[in-house]
Amino acid sequence: MRQLDGSTIAIVGLGLMGGSLAAALSAYRNEAAESIVIRGVGRRDASIETALQRKFVDEGTCDLAAGVQDADVVVLGTPVRTSIGLLQQMAPWLKQGCVVTDLGSTKTGIAEAMEALPPHVDPIGGHPMCGKEVAGLQAAEAGLFQGEAYILTPLARTPDDVTGLMKEIIRAIGAHPIMLTPSRHDRLVAATSHLPYLLAACLVQTADDIGAEDQLVWEMVSSGFRDTTRLAGSDTTMMHDILMTNRENVRRMIALFRDNLTRFEEYLAHDDEVRLAELMTASRRRREVLFR
Amino acid sequence: MRQLDGSTIAIVGLGLMGGSLAAALSAYRNEAAESIVIRGVGRRDASIETALQRKFVDEGTCDLAAGVQDADVVVLGTPVRTSIGLLQQMAPWLKQGCVVTDLGSTKTGIAEAMEALPPHVDPIGGHPMCGKEVAGLQAAEAGLFQGEAYILTPLARTPDDVTGLMKEIIRAIGAHPIMLTPSRHDRLVAATSHLPYLLAACLVQTADDIGAEDQLVWEMVSSGFRDTTRLAGSDTTMMHDILMTNRENVRRMIALFRDNLTRFEEYLAHDDEVRLAELMTASRRRREVLFR
Repeated sequence: MRQLDGSTIAIVGLGLMGGSLAAALSAYRNEAAESIVIRGVGRRDASIETALQRKFVDEGTCDLAAGVQDADVVVLGTPVRTSIGLLQQMAPWLKQGCVVTDLGSTKTGIAEAMEALPPHVDPIGGHPMCGKEVAGLQAAEAGLFQGEAYILTPLARTPDDVTGLMKEIIRAIGAHPIMLTPSRHDRLVAATSHLPYLLAACLVQTADDIGAEDQLVWEMVSSGFRDTTRLAGSDTTMMHDILMTNRENVRRMIALFRDNLTRFEEYLAHDDEVRLAELMTASRRRREVLFR
Repeated sequence: MRQLDGSTIAIVGLGLMGGSLAAALSAYRNEAAESIVIRGVGRRDASIETALQRKFVDEGTCDLAAGVQDADVVVLGTPVRTSIGLLQQMAPWLKQGCVVTDLGSTKTGIAEAMEALPPHVDPIGGHPMCGKEVAGLQAAEAGLFQGEAYILTPLARTPDDVTGLMKEIIRAIGAHPIMLTPSRHDRLVAATSHLPYLLAACLVQTADDIGAEDQLVWEMVSSGFRDTTRLAGSDTTMMHDILMTNRENVRRMIALFRDNLTRFEEYLAHDDEVRLAELMTASRRRREVLFR
């Protein structure tokens, strides 16, 4: 059985997610008195230095080959399309039985790239369901995963003990694992994350259209507008990769959303107060059940 | 010159907004050692008792005529269409020179009803740009207006000293006044408040559509979905009145929003990564300027 104790974990990409994972694993290791080596693999010396200073990692390097070659677990904390490229690039350097996983927000493209990996490595997709408006290592924190869901998308080739090791890591950082197929994951997050992002960005654009007529619109924005548009502040590189690697699901969600908007619009246009009230009440109740 | 000191202020409707206004005025009165009588006018004895117990009001009644007849200022804290009805109903009971204002979220319908008031009263519309997800007196608090904008929509008939008195009240509760015409107000809030509400409600409906296929969608909602849909939890009676009294502006905002969504959709469909990135970056920057 594979186990976390005694492992060397290389985290490639020290942004918000990778940095937070390093921090959370360090905190666990120190508390549980286990022997885990946490290694940061970055693109810039400055990130490595920061991660070392904040004691998120035990060691660090900007040399990808050196960073991953003796690791027991390699975690890709890069944008989805970067991760897809890195999987192919890294493969020859990885040791026998190396567990390869990622933190990306879409899973179908990652799963395809993981299927193509040579048989000596053991891939499994992952997606911690948490984040922040602010990107980058500066915003990283050990508590980011606490109480949150962490999706695992094993492939047919993924050995059970690899899934078991990932569950151990997920519990160590305070999250809880949910098992999904990549396609089911991507369909669900299109509804819960990617559509909300698009709506937020389009709402900002619409307010901007009005702002072009009347600048005062910006004096009128209050907490409701701020919260509804919060996701429009997401890291654009990350979001761009997400949208491009989940296009078909996102387009289907836009179509469903349009239908719902049309329904509201028709009730408004036809003065159908009873149906409008029903729709409003249904939305409120559904949300209350979720977040009470 | 009219002044706040020495005034009797009757607040009709002790919900979140009316209750918070009473609380904020009481706090100001106690601190500034001014002589102001704050009277609550409610529909239920229980609300009056709660407002008295929390020291939001000095006196209270469920008798509308008795509550408003000797007041220097009457503030309607009821849903917009209720306020429109109350204006007509109350008019004969109001004393000479009584200032009549409201806290409603749309202003054109209110302004029309105010124009129809007899000449012995002095009407002026108002809209504090703040709120909470939770409605009702229990959620009321003196600090609700602190640092927020408070729109005033004077009519042609509104005397300057009435506008001056309202500005004094607005500053007393920690807010800052912004002067607008009712139609300009309604156009702007359609973009900043009413469209965001509709998007939030439609997003909940869309997730519900997916939930009907796959219940797991509700396990996947995270802070992004929670924030984007927060306004869907708004008080439905209030929102219903808002949408019905601002229908044409809301429909125009929906149309503008649709155009923006179509633009995103086309870039996605045609793999136009450059334009997609531009749109995403523009939304992010615009929002950063607003909320930094």
